[in-house]
Amino acid sequence: MASKRRAVGSRWDTGRTEAFSDGVFAIAITLLVLDINVPESDFDDLWYGIAHQWPSYVGYVTSFVTIGGLWLAHHGIFRRIQYADARVTRLNLLLLMVVSFLPFPTRLMSEAIRDSDAETAAAVFYGTTLLAISIITWALWNTVARNRELLKVEVTDEEVRTISRLTAPNIGGYAVGILLARLAPQAAVFAFLATSIIALLRARGAPPEESGHERHSRTIA
Amino acid sequence: MASKRRAVGSRWDTGRTEAFSDGVFAIAITLLVLDINVPESDFDDLWYGIAHQWPSYVGYVTSFVTIGGLWLAHHGIFRRIQYADARVTRLNLLLLMVVSFLPFPTRLMSEAIRDSDAETAAAVFYGTTLLAISIITWALWNTVARNRELLKVEVTDEEVRTISRLTAPNIGGYAVGILLARLAPQAAVFAFLATSIIALLRARGAPPEESGHERHSRTIA
Amino acid sequence: MASKRRAVGSRWDTGRTEAFSDGVFAIAITLLVLDINVPESDFDDLWYGIAHQWPSYVGYVTSFVTIGGLWLAHHGIFRRIQYADARVTRLNLLLLMVVSFLPFPTRLMSEAIRDSDAETAAAVFYGTTLLAISIITWALWNTVARNRELLKVEVTDEEVRTISRLTAPNIGGYAVGILLARLAPQAAVFAFLATSIIALLRARGAPPEESGHERHSRTIA
Amino acid sequence: MASKRRAVGSRWDTGRTEAFSDGVFAIAITLLVLDINVPESDFDDLWYGIAHQWPSYVGYVTSFVTIGGLWLAHHGIFRRIQYADARVTRLNLLLLMVVSFLPFPTRLMSEAIRDSDAETAAAVFYGTTLLAISIITWALWNTVARNRELLKVEVTDEEVRTISRLTAPNIGGYAVGILLARLAPQAAVFAFLATSIIALLRARGAPPEESGHERHSRTIA
Repeated sequence: MASKRRAVGSRWDTGRTEAFSDGVFAIAITLLVLDINVPESDFDDLWYGIAHQWPSYVGYVTSFVTIGGLWLAHHGIFRRIQYADARVTRLNLLLLMVVSFLPFPTRLMSEAIRDSDAETAAAVFYGTTLLAISIITWALWNTVARNRELLKVEVTDEEVRTISRLTAPNIGGYAVGILLARLAPQAAVFAFLATSIIALLRARGAPPEESGHERHSRTIA
Repeated sequence: MASKRRAVGSRWDTGRTEAFSDGVFAIAITLLVLDINVPESDFDDLWYGIAHQWPSYVGYVTSFVTIGGLWLAHHGIFRRIQYADARVTRLNLLLLMVVSFLPFPTRLMSEAIRDSDAETAAAVFYGTTLLAISIITWALWNTVARNRELLKVEVTDEEVRTISRLTAPNIGGYAVGILLARLAPQAAVFAFLATSIIALLRARGAPPEESGHERHSRTIA
Repeated sequence: MASKRRAVGSRWDTGRTEAFSDGVFAIAITLLVLDINVPESDFDDLWYGIAHQWPSYVGYVTSFVTIGGLWLAHHGIFRRIQYADARVTRLNLLLLMVVSFLPFPTRLMSEAIRDSDAETAAAVFYGTTLLAISIITWALWNTVARNRELLKVEVTDEEVRTISRLTAPNIGGYAVGILLARLAPQAAVFAFLATSIIALLRARGAPPEESGHERHSRTIA
Repeated sequence: MASKRRAVGSRWDTGRTEAFSDGVFAIAITLLVLDINVPESDFDDLWYGIAHQWPSYVGYVTSFVTIGGLWLAHHGIFRRIQYADARVTRLNLLLLMVVSFLPFPTRLMSEAIRDSDAETAAAVFYGTTLLAISIITWALWNTVARNRELLKVEVTDEEVRTISRLTAPNIGGYAVGILLARLAPQAAVFAFLATSIIALLRARGAPPEESGHERHSRTIA
């Protein structure tokens, strides 16, 4: 009886945590567009005006892809969680807090990236926020991976190692971008974009060594 | 055991993908209203001021109906998916990225449609975004339809052909509107509206040749 | 087999329709707050500045309560639906389109209610939108109620009559408010508020003639 | 049969109430970022400009943590509810109305906290809204706790007492902050922050006296 109650309680817990997290991800992703705007003074040559907003598009795609990749990783993690204890819940709320903060540095980067006084600070601030998202995601997974009782019994050691490998390396890419921001802030923004795309491709790709008929059950997300 | 794990994983996957997509659709649809505004200078004759915003309403309805029709098609596609593999997941994220971008070209069209310098560019930009949504939806379905192992076993060839037929033809309507935008941008906007309404009506309507008692199981959405 | 497939398909349909509708309701409700603002010129006496925004609060509460009551009625309707056919789906999308439009007339009413040139138009426009929401909800229920095959088999005629009675009468209250808007626009806004509160109280209240132990299964929402 | 129908109806009811509430929480949490902005005049020294927005960050974190803690408590309450009757539904809608109102006092506090004329009023207004959220949450739980037929049968008296204890004490912290706002408004804001963090830590923490193997089933959320 006790064991049944616990199982029911936990299923709910994880389900509602995932639904709530998905809500925050979906909204943070969608709010990014509110900050894209062509000023009326550019209506004389609107194609130029649209093109001139390129930093907004790069920021939009980078932040969208970052949250999209995070969503895949998050799904991969929570699918394997049996119980979300206090640490997991708090780390998840911290992650959501930084994710829903992301539209602010994204907007600031778009506005400041062509201002020579401000562009380095804007790019570093943006990259640091992206890096923070990576680090918290990795900390979330590590908390789960080091406490096997939080994982479902059928999760194998190999799966744990695969997810550990896939959630770890983003950190490098963002760090490179942040260092680059001091020399060439606009290039740094493209480094963040590339890093987010690589993270997304890795998060969903099936490891190449897998045989065909088991591919579906092995992808992390 | 392996087969059971795969099934559990897949059900989750599709469920959370649908929930996340619905979240993005619902938010993108709802944000459209934030861009509708009557300036205080029109308060002298507010009925005129309200009526004067007609391009905003046409844009609002067109984008709403487009996303509504997409939601039906998306539901029709994902209801039949057994496994969402990496390509499906990525195409779906690309689709969501364009959908949540839509409020920007919608707003730009509303602002620029009565400015003779800008209206053609604004209408073409808006129509191209709508067209991109159609094409990606169609690509998403085709990826699924060409890989039968992604579909549930009970999906018939006829159902596959029906959905292929219903997701394909939007492209024509938007292309006509985009060409029309060079001659008569305001007419082009109504062409987009008509195209989106036709797409919505087709997406949900039961094919006329069906017999009554099977109607419910055959509609695509 | 055919019957099983149909049932599975329908359950999904209703579930995703409800989830999508809830998303739109939740967002429309939450966006209302973005339009409330105290201008910096009122910071000398901030309590006065906060109080001076009363039309915003009345609009916020009226629109919130309207959507809250609609959510209850919507839940009461969709709980009893077995299949959502094309008409139900389209009416529901129309309902969502008007609901997510509501923040615009709400904001316009708040801005214009103390401008003698604009207040009548603003109040009539606001009330008409609220009335449209009532009428579409009622049309949605009537479409279901007149097609018993859309309802779950266990729904009784008495339940159908109860919901018909509860979804109908809002129309009167809004019509009175709209007429009042020509004489006393500010009073009209309070009439809308009262109407929305009455609708909410009726939507959730258990009919008084019920015996205690059956109360829970009889409320409409 | 009657009992089965009631159970089905109630499960739906609670499920949709939770989903709708989560939607409102997720959106209210995410909208908070829209109000954070660095004016272009601060681009000369962007790091200073970013740092200068500290009241926005304190408000963002306080409101985020408040809603996060509320979400945990809400989950803990609704997990134990068997039936949501009219009072519970109305109190929950009232709670959602105040939660989605929260971005307005948060923004006002951020704008006014360094204006000596306005900061006391802004801090009191903000704290009062936070206090209202605590009081309504507590009233919601008390309504459930005093009507055992609303609770699932397996909920123990000890669980009821635990949740009663955890939902009650926030009130004190906010009251202290509100009083402090008259003397030192900026300190009051940090008092609100501390109160919200304490509430979050308590809401999710497992009571220390529990033995290890029962920890998961006892946390309130």
